[in-house]
Amino acid sequence: MAELQFDTYGKTAVRLTYVDRTNPRHEVRELSVSIFFEGDFRDSYFTGSNSSLLPTDTMKNTVYVLAKQLRWADIETFGRGITGHFLSRVPDVHQVTVQIEQVPWERIGEHAAAFRQAGTERRTAEISATRSGRQFTSGIRGLQVLKTADSAFAGFIKDEWTTLGETSDRLFGTVVSADWTYSRLDLDFNGTFTQVRDTLMQKFATHQSLSVQQTLFAMAEAVLAGCPAVQEIHLTLPNKHCLLVDLERFGIENPNQIFMPIDEPSGYIEARVMR
Amino acid sequence: MAELQFDTYGKTAVRLTYVDRTNPRHEVRELSVSIFFEGDFRDSYFTGSNSSLLPTDTMKNTVYVLAKQLRWADIETFGRGITGHFLSRVPDVHQVTVQIEQVPWERIGEHAAAFRQAGTERRTAEISATRSGRQFTSGIRGLQVLKTADSAFAGFIKDEWTTLGETSDRLFGTVVSADWTYSRLDLDFNGTFTQVRDTLMQKFATHQSLSVQQTLFAMAEAVLAGCPAVQEIHLTLPNKHCLLVDLERFGIENPNQIFMPIDEPSGYIEARVMR
Amino acid sequence: MAELQFDTYGKTAVRLTYVDRTNPRHEVRELSVSIFFEGDFRDSYFTGSNSSLLPTDTMKNTVYVLAKQLRWADIETFGRGITGHFLSRVPDVHQVTVQIEQVPWERIGEHAAAFRQAGTERRTAEISATRSGRQFTSGIRGLQVLKTADSAFAGFIKDEWTTLGETSDRLFGTVVSADWTYSRLDLDFNGTFTQVRDTLMQKFATHQSLSVQQTLFAMAEAVLAGCPAVQEIHLTLPNKHCLLVDLERFGIENPNQIFMPIDEPSGYIEARVMR
Amino acid sequence: MAELQFDTYGKTAVRLTYVDRTNPRHEVRELSVSIFFEGDFRDSYFTGSNSSLLPTDTMKNTVYVLAKQLRWADIETFGRGITGHFLSRVPDVHQVTVQIEQVPWERIGEHAAAFRQAGTERRTAEISATRSGRQFTSGIRGLQVLKTADSAFAGFIKDEWTTLGETSDRLFGTVVSADWTYSRLDLDFNGTFTQVRDTLMQKFATHQSLSVQQTLFAMAEAVLAGCPAVQEIHLTLPNKHCLLVDLERFGIENPNQIFMPIDEPSGYIEARVMR
Repeated sequence: MAELQFDTYGKTAVRLTYVDRTNPRHEVRELSVSIFFEGDFRDSYFTGSNSSLLPTDTMKNTVYVLAKQLRWADIETFGRGITGHFLSRVPDVHQVTVQIEQVPWERIGEHAAAFRQAGTERRTAEISATRSGRQFTSGIRGLQVLKTADSAFAGFIKDEWTTLGETSDRLFGTVVSADWTYSRLDLDFNGTFTQVRDTLMQKFATHQSLSVQQTLFAMAEAVLAGCPAVQEIHLTLPNKHCLLVDLERFGIENPNQIFMPIDEPSGYIEARVMR
Repeated sequence: MAELQFDTYGKTAVRLTYVDRTNPRHEVRELSVSIFFEGDFRDSYFTGSNSSLLPTDTMKNTVYVLAKQLRWADIETFGRGITGHFLSRVPDVHQVTVQIEQVPWERIGEHAAAFRQAGTERRTAEISATRSGRQFTSGIRGLQVLKTADSAFAGFIKDEWTTLGETSDRLFGTVVSADWTYSRLDLDFNGTFTQVRDTLMQKFATHQSLSVQQTLFAMAEAVLAGCPAVQEIHLTLPNKHCLLVDLERFGIENPNQIFMPIDEPSGYIEARVMR
Repeated sequence: MAELQFDTYGKTAVRLTYVDRTNPRHEVRELSVSIFFEGDFRDSYFTGSNSSLLPTDTMKNTVYVLAKQLRWADIETFGRGITGHFLSRVPDVHQVTVQIEQVPWERIGEHAAAFRQAGTERRTAEISATRSGRQFTSGIRGLQVLKTADSAFAGFIKDEWTTLGETSDRLFGTVVSADWTYSRLDLDFNGTFTQVRDTLMQKFATHQSLSVQQTLFAMAEAVLAGCPAVQEIHLTLPNKHCLLVDLERFGIENPNQIFMPIDEPSGYIEARVMR
Repeated sequence: MAELQFDTYGKTAVRLTYVDRTNPRHEVRELSVSIFFEGDFRDSYFTGSNSSLLPTDTMKNTVYVLAKQLRWADIETFGRGITGHFLSRVPDVHQVTVQIEQVPWERIGEHAAAFRQAGTERRTAEISATRSGRQFTSGIRGLQVLKTADSAFAGFIKDEWTTLGETSDRLFGTVVSADWTYSRLDLDFNGTFTQVRDTLMQKFATHQSLSVQQTLFAMAEAVLAGCPAVQEIHLTLPNKHCLLVDLERFGIENPNQIFMPIDEPSGYIEARVMR
């Protein structure tokens, strides 16, 4: 009577710190890896037979083994290696998806082996592979930026419940989430990541913004123009509001100086842009 | 050169506490409401013209006004009312999606006007509507459950990196996420929610589990069998591991008594089941 | 030149799930245990000699061993046992403090071995012991309550920057933190905990509140009156604001029905009350 | 019968973004301000009379007004101004404590008005003032650092439940919390903050660590030696463990390359050091 329409299983949040000691000047990479299998696992749902299941605990062990055995310097290459391993190892799996989130560590000064965590920003990658093909998506989460000039919002629809005033000068704060796909894969993924990230920040900083939408599109366009290997980019720019505090009721001027930042609610602007 | 493939905008996390004072015995509903518009908003991205945009601040105001003006006792009905309002109001919008999350408050004893927040669990609803039709999804997030008997895991694939032992008696803890759709909508949504939730917990409690997958399917089947209005159910059951602590290295027996619960990593089991 | 004024070391957040299988009807206790040593550990700071240090990793192992070896049914007794062990074991330690936080699990219906996590509330205990004496503190964290009637706030100081109106009917929401000490220790700690918690909720529910301060004191008084073994109680009641939404600017009445709950800022009221 | 032993009230988490537009090159300061009053407020607890209470809502308004009216470039000076205001304004208050947490924003490149949030680290200040004196404490929270060389731990106590091995080469990760007081107050607080922070990071990076305790003391000593205005420093260095993954059970070497970082449990080392 009941029918299985879709199913997947795997392991999430396998945490890993890799220390590259090849040179006296160490490198550190901290990752959180998630793995998802799709395939023919119906028996486990219907009969409780686990004969087609690789335990998720083994997935975890495998992440640690492959971190050591594979040659990788970026999360895209590591993720691809993990998908390849499982596809060759588990017959009933048809598709393996690996999601990796990298925690940024920056060197302290020029010290060979001391690092500072660079904050809440994360670099991400998702590699989804079958026996006949692969898809790579790279991304950023949690890039918090704010501009205090060159942001306006006016000319919008007003109805009887609209209280927002038009403004030619507001604060514009957002937390950039970006995901992009590639037109070719023989790439320096680390270099491309840095280039996309810098382009997003530069365009955000310099854009004469008439709306979050317009700035989002300008940022996407700049990435497509500047990074030829990027095929498509998906951006989410929540509008993290900073409300101007009403001091005039106390007879005090507040020429865009004193604001109250709020976490909730947020505006939400999302778009996918391709060549 | 750059082309807009998909776009949406809206407001997230509009928080609302509604106090029903119709009777001396008050009722409280605490919600977080998010609204997403899809439609013809290309100009705002390309030219910065905002003439087709209803500000997200107005969306927020509208939620509060409609909370007062609509007649509603469940989040599905409230969400439907919000979608209808915006579709009739904003010409360029083609689809409105409303997501609502309800924070559970329980009455303290039999007091008329005193309540206790019942925890991290949330009730959810998503209503997505165009001018020609609507889709309702109801759900649960964060229902944390644990069984200390009747859970086994054995007969799985072993490879050279498998260290997990077979077990006929493990702890099985999970945090249920469920979403379901309906075959008809002339429903008591509050009653249906309670019935789905109770059915999920009962089946989890009584199932002789051979795997998380098998229990997930049994829970889905039980909902479809017991709740005729439910068309399809989507369940995510992370396996929140409790590791048996190795006391034998100290010469001390540990017959499934002392465990270490861990947050990361988790197993992850997800499936969608329909009639 | 530099002098050590105070130092402590230990282990925090040792997580433990204890399954009592004595009866077919299982019991579950989930704890997070922290341990702090004070004593003569100056050499470790000055010379790097670790000869007086018990590793914090051993503290963790010990928690698991003692969870099995001690006879305990409440966190106060378990904590006392841990302090006693370390004081007898480590010569250079003068004082051991154990903090325990218990996650509440409720039985699902009458099932023998299935449980539901009861939310964000936590029961706490702190036992601080030297070779000559001990101090017990028990507590609650995260008890979220709300009353929709019988709460006023008026007659306060007004200055030129006061905009708050007087009110005879506001929402009063808070997250109770409570800590209490005992006048005697030959107690049923579980029963006492339940009694203190119930008393706090009952008094919160029934009090005709003229301010958070007055309700706080009434709650403390009720505990001291009803629980003879409690010597002193310390309460923190943040005022979790629910702002009345201004619908009158739209010509719509809002007779204390539609509110916006906010997380920040909060009022903050704290007091310690003793017999 | 019940007696008030201690009481305080105030407002927590008043959030404020200040934009300094004096020059075309803007400056941004984001703060979260908390205020606590101690004084003669007994009537509000006993009788519900609020005639001695300044509402916490007025405290919030006052923070915004003073942010505009005071001349301040650092949180210590702003906090001092707030304490002074309330002491002169509210007769029944005896002591005002202001805690401020600053969110770090860094300029994006050389842009005049665009910023990036620099992460989870926070700068803090606490100013506690009566009508006869003041105390200043400055601090850091959430400075996450990691060293991959020059950290050992050996020679510690072993008992029958010790399983930790001695090591001459481990990862040492921590999240620095620091608080310091001053011997004089005619200071450049911003410059002093930068100097203390840099000194803590430099010493952490270069120290040949035999234990967290020894490194903590070395860091404190370095601050006292390098920053003459600092009177006393209080440091908390949790030991955020990175566990070496056991690959040898698979016949694979792991020469300190592959680690599993864990959040819980943590070691905990805390000390206060003065001249």
